[in-house]
Amino acid sequence: MRTNKIKLYGFGVVGQGFQLYLGNNEDAKRLHTIIVKDDTKKRKNVPSIIECTNDKTVRDRDMDVILELISSPEEAYGIVAENLEIGKKVISANKKLIAENLAELIEVEKTNKGIFLYEGAVCGSIPIIRVLNDFYANEPIQEIKGIFNGSSNYILSKIFNENLCYEEALAQAQELGFAEANPTSDVGGFDSLYKLVILTVHAFGKIIKPEEILNIGIQSISESDIKFAQKNNLKIKLVAKVSLVEDELSLTVLPTLINVHNDLYDVENEFNGVVIKSENIGKQFYKGKGAGSLPTGSMVYADLKAIDNDYKYDYKKLRTSNYQFSNDNKITVIISVNKSIDIKELELEITNIFTLDNYNKQFLVEVSIEELKANKIKLQKERISVLAIEDRDLINKLTKSSYQEELILA
Amino acid sequence: MRTNKIKLYGFGVVGQGFQLYLGNNEDAKRLHTIIVKDDTKKRKNVPSIIECTNDKTVRDRDMDVILELISSPEEAYGIVAENLEIGKKVISANKKLIAENLAELIEVEKTNKGIFLYEGAVCGSIPIIRVLNDFYANEPIQEIKGIFNGSSNYILSKIFNENLCYEEALAQAQELGFAEANPTSDVGGFDSLYKLVILTVHAFGKIIKPEEILNIGIQSISESDIKFAQKNNLKIKLVAKVSLVEDELSLTVLPTLINVHNDLYDVENEFNGVVIKSENIGKQFYKGKGAGSLPTGSMVYADLKAIDNDYKYDYKKLRTSNYQFSNDNKITVIISVNKSIDIKELELEITNIFTLDNYNKQFLVEVSIEELKANKIKLQKERISVLAIEDRDLINKLTKSSYQEELILA
Repeated sequence: MRTNKIKLYGFGVVGQGFQLYLGNNEDAKRLHTIIVKDDTKKRKNVPSIIECTNDKTVRDRDMDVILELISSPEEAYGIVAENLEIGKKVISANKKLIAENLAELIEVEKTNKGIFLYEGAVCGSIPIIRVLNDFYANEPIQEIKGIFNGSSNYILSKIFNENLCYEEALAQAQELGFAEANPTSDVGGFDSLYKLVILTVHAFGKIIKPEEILNIGIQSISESDIKFAQKNNLKIKLVAKVSLVEDELSLTVLPTLINVHNDLYDVENEFNGVVIKSENIGKQFYKGKGAGSLPTGSMVYADLKAIDNDYKYDYKKLRTSNYQFSNDNKITVIISVNKSIDIKELELEITNIFTLDNYNKQFLVEVSIEELKANKIKLQKERISVLAIEDRDLINKLTKSSYQEELILA
Repeated sequence: MRTNKIKLYGFGVVGQGFQLYLGNNEDAKRLHTIIVKDDTKKRKNVPSIIECTNDKTVRDRDMDVILELISSPEEAYGIVAENLEIGKKVISANKKLIAENLAELIEVEKTNKGIFLYEGAVCGSIPIIRVLNDFYANEPIQEIKGIFNGSSNYILSKIFNENLCYEEALAQAQELGFAEANPTSDVGGFDSLYKLVILTVHAFGKIIKPEEILNIGIQSISESDIKFAQKNNLKIKLVAKVSLVEDELSLTVLPTLINVHNDLYDVENEFNGVVIKSENIGKQFYKGKGAGSLPTGSMVYADLKAIDNDYKYDYKKLRTSNYQFSNDNKITVIISVNKSIDIKELELEITNIFTLDNYNKQFLVEVSIEELKANKIKLQKERISVLAIEDRDLINKLTKSSYQEELILA
């Protein structure tokens, strides 16, 4: 059945991109209403069908497709859940809403025979959810990692390629509209975290609460981190990663040292990149714009076309997989301690520690994800940077040229 | 409707990969018959349902899904066309069959309400046809280029990364099963050409006959080409490309110099890579294994799952686009002439010529695609290498350091 009337909630960056994309083709007249909360906002080419309302009634019985493209996850919840409850076809790009409520929303979708699609919520123009649903449903995945946030990646590119400082780069990203309404979500790694949670559902069939996962952002990356990276021909990227470690799922969002042979090395500016490693297909890499009005708007439009064909996510792995999640996995990180305090004062329970630079208090440390997570607020407060390092050769090189400290036991 | 009985024609590399992939899940019992022509061939784990027949009756009325995975395009034609004529659901991975007969097969599919899918025919494990159909139907594409043949790419990787000679590298590729039954199709650029033709249908809505397009393979790449590339920190890749040049479609398959900033630079061995440039989405890059039993078999399996959901390619651009195809576009190539003859003897109609290396008879030449195509057999016979070069900075550098010859007019 061809759906007809579309109601669009929100007319921000993605909403305007969708409307522009829609406007160029025969579907344009299907857009019935656009709902905004504040019509005093500056917007380009405001269509006449725009309505400004704070009305809390969100059961759109007279509509066929509901597009939820507002910024508040709390208000988005009502729009999405209530319309799914009456069996509507709903599209959303709200990663926080989805990451925090997916178990419930899938249930409501199923019970009431609605459809819920959200390709625009993850990695902008890279159709990664559809690829996982359509091509990896029966494929055992070992790892997914990537750069999922265009805004923080833009900032890191400016720092590494144009020697801007963090503050200058952030301001530029916001000016260009690459930053979300709240920059903390981008630079703090929360946006990447929500996307990682959503991909983990499709790739491994496991719903994990965002608050159970360690996410460290790019705000605390130090001068000495950047110098260290450049000296070793590396870049720092904000990498979100889910992998099977001894049959348990391990998830992190961490600033990570990336070498020139890594596919993510050349993912620059507002681009996103995703690497999938799986049993039979091997390695795949996807790169595309992860932010921006039209790149994301075009994905919302693709969801609309899929809904016209009654396409649904199958969530096969949710029914068939049975992975456990754990933060016990040990990882190697470089910790740069603020000069005014001693690393021992942190009382981190560390397996192994090597001193890289005594003057700058830079240490190579082996530590569990759980331990870092438990101490995240303390690390953040002291602006202590944590930088993941995966390259085994580099770790070996560094441990050889450094000296091992006595084990610090908390 | 859930389809039931599957008949598989062919049990070679892809067929065995598919069967293995299928065998690991609940669909395994749907595989009813496997047809082979020669049951004396060595095969691993031959299932009991295998039948050896030369029977020419190919209307499989009692089957639900037909998988055509044989090597002969002529015999494949009968299997695919006749089953589509009786409205069956048909999956093929036969790029030559598809590239040469797509207009007719789409018509037969439509008239008789069958379904015809062929994701496994293009770029192995990269789901590029599905991506184009689902996410680019309304998106104006400017260019698609990529490495579409795993076998020739494997050979080039061995030459560049391990200093093997062409013959050694070819033998290795064949041994590992990365080369098709007929190596000429791989190394001569025909396999890439067929895939390019198929992608052009989905990306630009234009069906072009393979014989109208210039394809030059990797057999004539010279020692001096390889040295030239290495000296300039470049690699040679067999690049298939379709692009809009002044509103006309221009298509080529050519050995091409690739610099380190190009996404295709790091596509090595049996991997394929595809770069899409489009108006609203910008640039996207996809990389994955382009050959091999399981990577391709898994795509055939994904087609089966799509057919279970009555998924069809929409071919929207075939109905809405109206591009003209032309070979008039001028390109810049490096021509290395066999030492025994003079470049003037070739009687190529050239716009511009610069001498790069007088001793090795290496020239930078601006020439139309049409002119190269008209002289392809002559160039091949004399083993004269043609190497495309797109990097404007490098062309400028080369023309400065070279001297211009008098125009050679045929």
